[in-house]
Amino acid sequence: MTARPLRIALVGSGFMGRAHAMAFAAVRRTFDLPVEPVLEILADRDPEQAAGAARALGFTRSTGDWREAVADPAIDLVAIAAPNLLHAPIALAALAAGKPVYCEKPLAATLAEAQAMADAAAASGLPTAVGYTYLYNPMIALAREIVAGGEIGEVTAFRGIHAEDFMATADAPFNWRCEPAQAGGALADIGSHIIALARHLIGEVAEVSGRLHTAHPVRRDATGAARDVAVDDQMDAVVRFSSGATGTLSASWIATGRKMGLAFEISGTKGSIAFTQERFNELQLYREGAGLRSGFTTIMAGPGHGEYGAFCPASGHQIGYNDLKTIEVKAAIDAVLGIPGAAKNFADALRTERVAHAIRASHAERRWVEP
Amino acid sequence: MTARPLRIALVGSGFMGRAHAMAFAAVRRTFDLPVEPVLEILADRDPEQAAGAARALGFTRSTGDWREAVADPAIDLVAIAAPNLLHAPIALAALAAGKPVYCEKPLAATLAEAQAMADAAAASGLPTAVGYTYLYNPMIALAREIVAGGEIGEVTAFRGIHAEDFMATADAPFNWRCEPAQAGGALADIGSHIIALARHLIGEVAEVSGRLHTAHPVRRDATGAARDVAVDDQMDAVVRFSSGATGTLSASWIATGRKMGLAFEISGTKGSIAFTQERFNELQLYREGAGLRSGFTTIMAGPGHGEYGAFCPASGHQIGYNDLKTIEVKAAIDAVLGIPGAAKNFADALRTERVAHAIRASHAERRWVEP
Amino acid sequence: MTARPLRIALVGSGFMGRAHAMAFAAVRRTFDLPVEPVLEILADRDPEQAAGAARALGFTRSTGDWREAVADPAIDLVAIAAPNLLHAPIALAALAAGKPVYCEKPLAATLAEAQAMADAAAASGLPTAVGYTYLYNPMIALAREIVAGGEIGEVTAFRGIHAEDFMATADAPFNWRCEPAQAGGALADIGSHIIALARHLIGEVAEVSGRLHTAHPVRRDATGAARDVAVDDQMDAVVRFSSGATGTLSASWIATGRKMGLAFEISGTKGSIAFTQERFNELQLYREGAGLRSGFTTIMAGPGHGEYGAFCPASGHQIGYNDLKTIEVKAAIDAVLGIPGAAKNFADALRTERVAHAIRASHAERRWVEP
Amino acid sequence: MTARPLRIALVGSGFMGRAHAMAFAAVRRTFDLPVEPVLEILADRDPEQAAGAARALGFTRSTGDWREAVADPAIDLVAIAAPNLLHAPIALAALAAGKPVYCEKPLAATLAEAQAMADAAAASGLPTAVGYTYLYNPMIALAREIVAGGEIGEVTAFRGIHAEDFMATADAPFNWRCEPAQAGGALADIGSHIIALARHLIGEVAEVSGRLHTAHPVRRDATGAARDVAVDDQMDAVVRFSSGATGTLSASWIATGRKMGLAFEISGTKGSIAFTQERFNELQLYREGAGLRSGFTTIMAGPGHGEYGAFCPASGHQIGYNDLKTIEVKAAIDAVLGIPGAAKNFADALRTERVAHAIRASHAERRWVEP
Repeated sequence: MTARPLRIALVGSGFMGRAHAMAFAAVRRTFDLPVEPVLEILADRDPEQAAGAARALGFTRSTGDWREAVADPAIDLVAIAAPNLLHAPIALAALAAGKPVYCEKPLAATLAEAQAMADAAAASGLPTAVGYTYLYNPMIALAREIVAGGEIGEVTAFRGIHAEDFMATADAPFNWRCEPAQAGGALADIGSHIIALARHLIGEVAEVSGRLHTAHPVRRDATGAARDVAVDDQMDAVVRFSSGATGTLSASWIATGRKMGLAFEISGTKGSIAFTQERFNELQLYREGAGLRSGFTTIMAGPGHGEYGAFCPASGHQIGYNDLKTIEVKAAIDAVLGIPGAAKNFADALRTERVAHAIRASHAERRWVEP
Repeated sequence: MTARPLRIALVGSGFMGRAHAMAFAAVRRTFDLPVEPVLEILADRDPEQAAGAARALGFTRSTGDWREAVADPAIDLVAIAAPNLLHAPIALAALAAGKPVYCEKPLAATLAEAQAMADAAAASGLPTAVGYTYLYNPMIALAREIVAGGEIGEVTAFRGIHAEDFMATADAPFNWRCEPAQAGGALADIGSHIIALARHLIGEVAEVSGRLHTAHPVRRDATGAARDVAVDDQMDAVVRFSSGATGTLSASWIATGRKMGLAFEISGTKGSIAFTQERFNELQLYREGAGLRSGFTTIMAGPGHGEYGAFCPASGHQIGYNDLKTIEVKAAIDAVLGIPGAAKNFADALRTERVAHAIRASHAERRWVEP
Repeated sequence: MTARPLRIALVGSGFMGRAHAMAFAAVRRTFDLPVEPVLEILADRDPEQAAGAARALGFTRSTGDWREAVADPAIDLVAIAAPNLLHAPIALAALAAGKPVYCEKPLAATLAEAQAMADAAAASGLPTAVGYTYLYNPMIALAREIVAGGEIGEVTAFRGIHAEDFMATADAPFNWRCEPAQAGGALADIGSHIIALARHLIGEVAEVSGRLHTAHPVRRDATGAARDVAVDDQMDAVVRFSSGATGTLSASWIATGRKMGLAFEISGTKGSIAFTQERFNELQLYREGAGLRSGFTTIMAGPGHGEYGAFCPASGHQIGYNDLKTIEVKAAIDAVLGIPGAAKNFADALRTERVAHAIRASHAERRWVEP
Repeated sequence: MTARPLRIALVGSGFMGRAHAMAFAAVRRTFDLPVEPVLEILADRDPEQAAGAARALGFTRSTGDWREAVADPAIDLVAIAAPNLLHAPIALAALAAGKPVYCEKPLAATLAEAQAMADAAAASGLPTAVGYTYLYNPMIALAREIVAGGEIGEVTAFRGIHAEDFMATADAPFNWRCEPAQAGGALADIGSHIIALARHLIGEVAEVSGRLHTAHPVRRDATGAARDVAVDDQMDAVVRFSSGATGTLSASWIATGRKMGLAFEISGTKGSIAFTQERFNELQLYREGAGLRSGFTTIMAGPGHGEYGAFCPASGHQIGYNDLKTIEVKAAIDAVLGIPGAAKNFADALRTERVAHAIRASHAERRWVEP
């Protein structure tokens, strides 16, 4: 039996566009899918760049106009890895054209746009998926199963952070990540990962009290010109979940030494979980009841955890970041096919964005804010 | 040359009283002191208990009345390891009697009492010391030296927690730690350690926004009776330091699995420090500039770090909790002798208490509060 | 410019065959190659199995007769992922047909066959490559660079082990890995990895004194029949390197709890390196000269280390086991193209096999043996 | 009830003598003993040095002649912390005088002397104890309990090392540790710790094949003179235990970066244990049967483990090296009192020395040797 093709239009060919293309190529060799993803059209800023990237990444066709790609009748799924500013226009056009959409995070550059996207998705009834890559980690699937199954009792606290250091020094240049209009700042750029994780594992956030901090208020752009920075370098918030659990959420791109410090600890009445993305093939689990043999157990990823088994039949071999992206693409395809699965749709992503927005509002107004 | 005696009156013979006695006994074999601490009088609730404990701990005399001990003309230093409620009356009486005072943390059961103690100490001009044991760790001395020396640049963030689990289950009994009047609750009981550490390393706290949470609002006391709990099981706060650095402070005695989870990470513009009391003979240090050899370095405590060398001439052998107490007692003795050193006096401890109080007020009033 | 095709015949479609196919597919999207690998023919035991696997893995053609695949004039490279017994016949036939060969480890089922393969490769002048996957890890490339550059001084010791636990219990079934004729046993099956690593990092082994141990001398096969086990469950050897360094080599497939415990520590006169494959995106490095800031530094894999950058432009994201296989395939392709690189050829693999053989001989004869 | 005195004569006041004195002083405040150790006589090389040390360490009397101390009728226990060369003469004299003896490791400078000491102890019927400090760690007590109780099944392997780096560079001076007559060399000096641990946990050693290596064959002494080094810098051995388990034993004082790397892993058919003295308040335990929640559990020392509770009533606070020495002294006192306990007597220590000797003989004769 030959799987029917699922024709992809991808918009964007930067770091994330390339990661999408590689994941679409890998997904059908990794998973037993009822469809075969076909890299049909690559759209990018201009025809030449698009054509070159299409060749390198294995796309059949290319275009310098994303509107063309989105409207193409052959296309079954529109994947968006374009700059944040373009997420909304592309997604809205795709939904209007009756296409399922798989969009990189953040959902949009502004909350209004994100709301519009979620509304359009709901109105259309079309499947959508958003790329919070770290949610697809088999060890996060395990953590969720442990929490949901009551293995650590009732959750009392979640304390999490996404810490990196790519903007740690004053020398790190002013770029699009420093533009508020581009959804810049540590909170928007990486904070959304820890918010999404918190919601994925613990449930909705009821209220937040947060603070943003700009450690380097002036950075130089590519031309050497000094530019005022109007976005945050780091964010810290106290949070209360709807479940009653409390804790903290932090994000920083100036956390010197942290390369992928997406880390959290969940405390429950009967156990605890600790995790860091810097060792993402591991999960630390503590459970009551072992007496003098108690302690945190380092569980190593293996075939029984989440989608690990699709990559390797043996424990401890480890999957990599690009494999997480492959699982994410698998989830997006499942969403397109109507298979219940792990993908987060626009409605869900909107709730994550609202928490980020609430933290920003809380900072501005110096008060507790409900998302 | 024989060292002159320094006669100690100790009030209290529980866990902390015993720790004091052992530390006073150990300090003169560990350090080369100009005085020799003499365990002169042990005071406790009633004469018999005091007499028994005095024998066991090696005191010359005992009394069931702390007032007698404090007033005794032979006494050179009053050490307080009595219930929190008694800290203020004992300390005030001791200062009034012209005695230096070395008091366990927290300084007092209420902020008003703490203020009175600090005022009395200032008015008297007498030396005072407060027992924040974890500050005396050689690796904390190293951390302070690294921060103060600018080795990690300008500090941008401090995120810290004191997490333990001795009250994690609903079964953990209602005891004095659950009484607000006794300075109960996780924030007061153990949160003061992380606040003291933050201040020790980063400087004064400018403002806080915090939240307290009581996960187990009813606990049973020793008689089996259900008692309402009016103190917090966990606390989380966003904090801004006077230096401009921001971050979080948390405390929890329901952090299942954490036995001594006093941990923090300091981010600076040129490096970072990470630490946990669960491995307190180690400090993690990251410094810029090592290129492809960069990473967090695990420094193991050795003779060149703080007071480690007084215990062992070789690195990696490790000191224990009781040794930290011995260093603390050394610092208290230095304070009595007028030797500039590491001890925190009443004025300093009051500032720590004020931060805890500000967090409590912030929770009650749902706003940012300055200590 | 379109890259010219490099047509692959792969023999074997089990775990390793599938890993090869995925790696050949991934390699051209990961690296900028002057050739484009084409999955041309898949050979397996019978035509039907081969045809099914070819469809699943994306091969153009299939055959039930490996001789046909090897002899096919269209083929540019023969990849061998067949049972160990077949390595020699396939490789010899391929070399005789003038084809470069890329063979899974171990080189062959017996030392005589391995010697014959190395001889044939030398006589033919054809490129060969052997799949010691773990050598291709960017952090191993870093370790090698550190050792070779003298950063840890003169190496005084190498102590290494490959520990797994898939045969740990007496219940683990008798299978081909328990057959001496199939190159079974822990020493042959996984010990070759730590030997290859030791040679890769430290240089040739001068002599060994080893011991094999069979903890479970009887295991049941798939039919439930009790079978005597004539291979080792674990191996330990003292080793002297030609450089003068000494140390130990161990292998075990009954090391309960270890899933991928390929680990070593290298001591040098000026520094040390520690590594475990269970956290293979990290390397621990100690270097003299940091005084009171000394310690092992945990280096996290990033774009400047080995081939990491081909997978991800940012540090700390991590690569996975399948990515190591992709790097290995890249090295094999480089070998075919005559590009000097990391691939180990048959002559090198033979030296690794000789060390394993020497350990076995040392055990049998209870004496030191030179490889 | 007042405990009766146990009068101690200590010979030696260097690092180890001081550690003994501190431990004797601490032991009675830590444990509830039926006797009260009294620091009666300190003996050292000359009267003045002895008198000074006696004052500093709190001894009642002192002498420049150890024979006098040993013969003193008031003495109940002779403790030996003198140079290795003197262990035998002092111990033999003490036993001849009818005194129990507590001796630092190694038992003696030569095997013949060690044998004589064990013989004399047996003939006298007097209690003896030897100071293998690391055996007294509560986590080692836990490990022993786990192994003995069959919790990890049948032990299949023990791989251990004692690695330090105090002689790592060629600059480390020639001192008494480099003299064969003084029981110098890494094997004798620190290797005995890992041998003692292996025997303590796994049982007797049946045979060994070992190799010694001198990386720095010339070192300069205190006068700057070049001296040939006739002892080993590192040792590696393959070992077979009487139980059938196999493994490796290593020792090194040139293991750059290791400060107290006394580490081992025990594999059993149902579980495993891993330990390093560099984090000696922890034990790693793996046990079969947890399915997808399996992994190594980091157990943190607490009151239920060994003698930890005598130091602290709460888990995770940690004990230090000097506390291990206090437990060792407690065991020696128990031995004197005829209380069955943890102390290793001369007969046991002799067996540890025999293993070290067998490794040395194996190296010299290049063959397997039975201890």
